[in-house]
Amino acid sequence: MKTPHLLITSAGRRAKLVDYFVRDWTTGRVSTADCNPLAAALYMTQHHYIVPKIDEVDYIDHLLRLCQTEKVTAILSLIDPELGLLAEATERFQAIGVTVIVSSHEACQLCFDKYAMYEYCLSRGIAHAQTYHSMESFREALALSEIKLPVFVKPRSGSASIEVRRVETLAEVEQLFAKNSGLIVQELLVGQELGVDAYVDLISGKVTSIFVKEKLTMRAGETDKSRSVVREDVFELVEQVLEHSGLIGPLDFDLFDVDGTLYLSEINPRFGGGYPHAYECGVNFPAQLFRNLQHEINPPHIGNYTSDLYMLKHDTMTLVSAAALQQMKR
Amino acid sequence: MKTPHLLITSAGRRAKLVDYFVRDWTTGRVSTADCNPLAAALYMTQHHYIVPKIDEVDYIDHLLRLCQTEKVTAILSLIDPELGLLAEATERFQAIGVTVIVSSHEACQLCFDKYAMYEYCLSRGIAHAQTYHSMESFREALALSEIKLPVFVKPRSGSASIEVRRVETLAEVEQLFAKNSGLIVQELLVGQELGVDAYVDLISGKVTSIFVKEKLTMRAGETDKSRSVVREDVFELVEQVLEHSGLIGPLDFDLFDVDGTLYLSEINPRFGGGYPHAYECGVNFPAQLFRNLQHEINPPHIGNYTSDLYMLKHDTMTLVSAAALQQMKR
Repeated sequence: MKTPHLLITSAGRRAKLVDYFVRDWTTGRVSTADCNPLAAALYMTQHHYIVPKIDEVDYIDHLLRLCQTEKVTAILSLIDPELGLLAEATERFQAIGVTVIVSSHEACQLCFDKYAMYEYCLSRGIAHAQTYHSMESFREALALSEIKLPVFVKPRSGSASIEVRRVETLAEVEQLFAKNSGLIVQELLVGQELGVDAYVDLISGKVTSIFVKEKLTMRAGETDKSRSVVREDVFELVEQVLEHSGLIGPLDFDLFDVDGTLYLSEINPRFGGGYPHAYECGVNFPAQLFRNLQHEINPPHIGNYTSDLYMLKHDTMTLVSAAALQQMKR
Repeated sequence: MKTPHLLITSAGRRAKLVDYFVRDWTTGRVSTADCNPLAAALYMTQHHYIVPKIDEVDYIDHLLRLCQTEKVTAILSLIDPELGLLAEATERFQAIGVTVIVSSHEACQLCFDKYAMYEYCLSRGIAHAQTYHSMESFREALALSEIKLPVFVKPRSGSASIEVRRVETLAEVEQLFAKNSGLIVQELLVGQELGVDAYVDLISGKVTSIFVKEKLTMRAGETDKSRSVVREDVFELVEQVLEHSGLIGPLDFDLFDVDGTLYLSEINPRFGGGYPHAYECGVNFPAQLFRNLQHEINPPHIGNYTSDLYMLKHDTMTLVSAAALQQMKR
């Protein structure tokens, strides 16, 4: 059996995550790719590649060629906009012996469509913030006191917290909808925000790890400080959400605990930005991925981590010479 | 002679900087203080203290007592709002044998008043973005074509890029001024932004180090990627600005290079958030501070660093147990 060679694409600033892979994969190989030679995570691996931007027409063709010349056996993207692309191209990669570590295309679409996610939760009896995708339905709900102001207005398909606004008046909601038809209105939940890192085994399809953290402070749209907690109620909810969902591999959930009721907020079908907290508490996804790529099934170990450990992010840096950058031209 | 014991206050997230101090001060001692036990930088030093918030009335008294009980010999703050406070209390610290590493109170005030800084530059023939502190003077300048829209509107005394807005119309400037009297209007400069880290010897009063970087990418109000450059014109400007300024110790400058003309944008009379780039290129302020506190003068070494080195920031983290936090109660 070939030892795996994993290519992590759109590696960006996720140097810590890439470093965990390098550290854990004592056999096999980990490489990185990004369109920007100033992406810090590139420099965590011995081999790194500059590739086209993901929206360039030849992006997938370029990756396929790269996989062949570099004998890549598996590919993993770290950013939302690339997931759908890879999910669609899964068969082309499979044809050359490359495993794409990504959820089904339908499952990815579900995660990126906030209204579809709301309907999905409704149909499964999972609590979710009230959500409206038209002015009419929102006005009606307001009249019936199903929802009250202030509310959140966000793009129906949006990544992270880009363009999310808290809105105080009906007039302002109307103004925003008049300018942009792709918006939704969402109930403002007041409660403890929870982040969840989960791993669904690529072979068995079963959830093997669930890690829960309370989000304490945010910075630049990411969790800056968090606390690990062991919560059986969260484990149950996550298992319920994942059943027959088509979601696999590393996943990231946002939840709200409103007086003990758990609301699903969103699912990112990829490594979350806060995953290093899970890793440091003993929840090792790179090792599970390695075993899966060696055709081994991972046994479930849900809740098997250190609780009450605080994660405090701070900055570090990588220095790269102009000469080293020169050699990086694609 | 006593070996120095430095207390770094408002240490916050500046873990990398604190770590440089710990690494360089092989004799002497470095400790940290913050009001928040979740400040990551606290955990870089063996001894760390939880102190009141800087706006609490007993803050300075608390620090004075702490300095006495812990035999602190010097104090250094990392955030703007604390600098004026410490500058005012310099004599009280001196009376108990503690050196406050801070510029004169007047020099700090100059740095925090964007209009005063503009006038300072005008009087010394240093290029600076046109600046107006009243609607009348701005309207007049607009009529005379001394300035054109769009412009920046910012608080006259503001730290970092908090509440800085790019404004396209006169009506919007008027609206903002009607709501808030503490604003200024500033010319929008289009050019390469430069960051400068400078050290002014505490004993000789001479500039000993000047490090220049091109700012390439910003994130959460801080430089995320930068490139070191050796620029004689910047060295000259910085030396001119600093002469008889009352500014001492570690300093941080923002400049704009507009087609070869250097405009001073602002001075932060403290360690800049991007200082680690200077350190990694060989410009060592912690070592200079140590020598100064040992009553040794540092010889000037301006421009003595590696150019064309790119700094790429990314995240790392510190894990702290709930038990360790418990012991941190002030």
